[in-house]
Amino acid sequence: MATIKILTEAELKSCVQLNPEAVACVEDAFRTLAGGGVVMPPILRLDIEENNGEVDVKTAYVPGLDSFAIKISPGFFDNPKIGLPSLNGLMTLFSAKTGLVEALLLDNGYLTAVRTAAAGAVAARNLSREDSETVTVLGAGEQGRLQLEAISLVRPVKRARYWAPHIESAQKAAALMADRLNIEVTAQTDAQAAVTGADIVVTATPATSPILMADWLEPGQTAICMGSDAEHKNELEPAAIAKADAYVPDRLSQVRILGELHHAIDAGIVAPNADFAELGEVIAGMKTGRASDLDIVIADLTGTGLQDTAIATFAFQRAMASGCGADFES
Amino acid sequence: MATIKILTEAELKSCVQLNPEAVACVEDAFRTLAGGGVVMPPILRLDIEENNGEVDVKTAYVPGLDSFAIKISPGFFDNPKIGLPSLNGLMTLFSAKTGLVEALLLDNGYLTAVRTAAAGAVAARNLSREDSETVTVLGAGEQGRLQLEAISLVRPVKRARYWAPHIESAQKAAALMADRLNIEVTAQTDAQAAVTGADIVVTATPATSPILMADWLEPGQTAICMGSDAEHKNELEPAAIAKADAYVPDRLSQVRILGELHHAIDAGIVAPNADFAELGEVIAGMKTGRASDLDIVIADLTGTGLQDTAIATFAFQRAMASGCGADFES
Repeated sequence: MATIKILTEAELKSCVQLNPEAVACVEDAFRTLAGGGVVMPPILRLDIEENNGEVDVKTAYVPGLDSFAIKISPGFFDNPKIGLPSLNGLMTLFSAKTGLVEALLLDNGYLTAVRTAAAGAVAARNLSREDSETVTVLGAGEQGRLQLEAISLVRPVKRARYWAPHIESAQKAAALMADRLNIEVTAQTDAQAAVTGADIVVTATPATSPILMADWLEPGQTAICMGSDAEHKNELEPAAIAKADAYVPDRLSQVRILGELHHAIDAGIVAPNADFAELGEVIAGMKTGRASDLDIVIADLTGTGLQDTAIATFAFQRAMASGCGADFES
Repeated sequence: MATIKILTEAELKSCVQLNPEAVACVEDAFRTLAGGGVVMPPILRLDIEENNGEVDVKTAYVPGLDSFAIKISPGFFDNPKIGLPSLNGLMTLFSAKTGLVEALLLDNGYLTAVRTAAAGAVAARNLSREDSETVTVLGAGEQGRLQLEAISLVRPVKRARYWAPHIESAQKAAALMADRLNIEVTAQTDAQAAVTGADIVVTATPATSPILMADWLEPGQTAICMGSDAEHKNELEPAAIAKADAYVPDRLSQVRILGELHHAIDAGIVAPNADFAELGEVIAGMKTGRASDLDIVIADLTGTGLQDTAIATFAFQRAMASGCGADFES
């Protein structure tokens, strides 16, 4: 018989927000990754094709953290037709000492959204020019909005542009974010025009063929590609990786399988065993990301179990400190 | 906001027992596996070596079942030193239509124990001689006891023998099971003597080198090896697979990686791509398991996500029918 803490989405939202503390939590986790000792197995993926559904399970053990999370993320893309969200899921937190369940974080995907956006901020802080003022986001969904919010925490963002396959979505995101961040935000009908002159370009879509072209990238720009989290997804033209001065993945072993890199490998543009500095190694100062203000730098963020363990542990500590949640005996 | 059913270990024990219904549930799942359409990804495994811990995550989608389970099984083998059980865990049940969480089954490993024992009964019913009366169990832990109980549900077991590395454990299991099943149960100090003359031999240990030798096996015997659920575990001498008239795994793709078969492949006794009838195919009558009363037949049970989805769905249906469990909104 053990006591398990159960935290609802509302409680987790009261404990964890997309703010500098959450960004620091994710940044610290990536720094630890570079130091060694992190255990992060390949993602478990279950596809239920007949219901247009997929499930990812991610986890990592991070030395120094008392707990590890196992995060289950179902995505069922016909759900909106019946009035349900596509993305759901929960995280379970276990003691890293005993394996006992410590907490069930019934976040319906909220913590995943926060840790994913926080990784965008971590990439921007460590790879973009410090004076980055203009941000373009390709994609106008929840992550497209959160990425802009996250980057605004670490860079002096003065203006932003949204592009999306449907201009109405871009307009809606632009209006919402202009209001939320109190900056100038426009919607663009032409993706190339949206990218031209931007300091940071984020791709945040479920695209399965490139939406950001190599030719569009300009000296000094930072591209943060965070939509490609499965084999068939692809936002960046593979030639862009060859063109860039630096390509920085969240986890090299993972992007070889499912990130933008794997499309570049398939296209014969990058060798299968080519080595790249990981984001954590750049944060830790072990390797170089951006070497000059004129570099084109690409970050490839596929989402890691590391971030899940980091944010879940953070959320649990916050919840315990504030007395949130219900106790359950089993 | 969704409603999630939470079921405690005590509630699950009241809904699901090791009985003919649980055995039928697991047998039906194996039959479905043979029919095609089941999606069962490789096991996700996280090792936390510094705490002598390991975590397995298993899942499967089974056509025809409304739900699928994701089962998380931590095993932390230093726990007994601080008065905690080594094995723990929980199952989460999701709608196969929407991916929404339906239920949290806080079973602390109970349902895993039941579905593992049930698979032993399924193997015995489909592979052993109908007149099997003598059962030998190598291993005197919880599964060693449950396997005998399970096999007694499907065969006219009149006597049993326990062997374990420590005779005291075997004696304890023998006394317990004699009382529970009201049959003659003895403890044996010599494993070979225990195997001689038995109709069914079960291996249920965490052994990492063989405890059941090829030479010991006699015509007509059925060996059910169910302890080897990880790469480094090994209960059966590889030569036994060559000697047997039939070798029947629960899931061929899985035993090639972590079952007894993988040790036989490593030893060069079996070709890496050698084909074998799976348990589900024998149940479905698509392939032959035992062809004669004189055959030596080996079942290799590594434990599958299929069984987890089957038992979790079964438990949830039982709980809903009996009004068990608490509702939680998140």
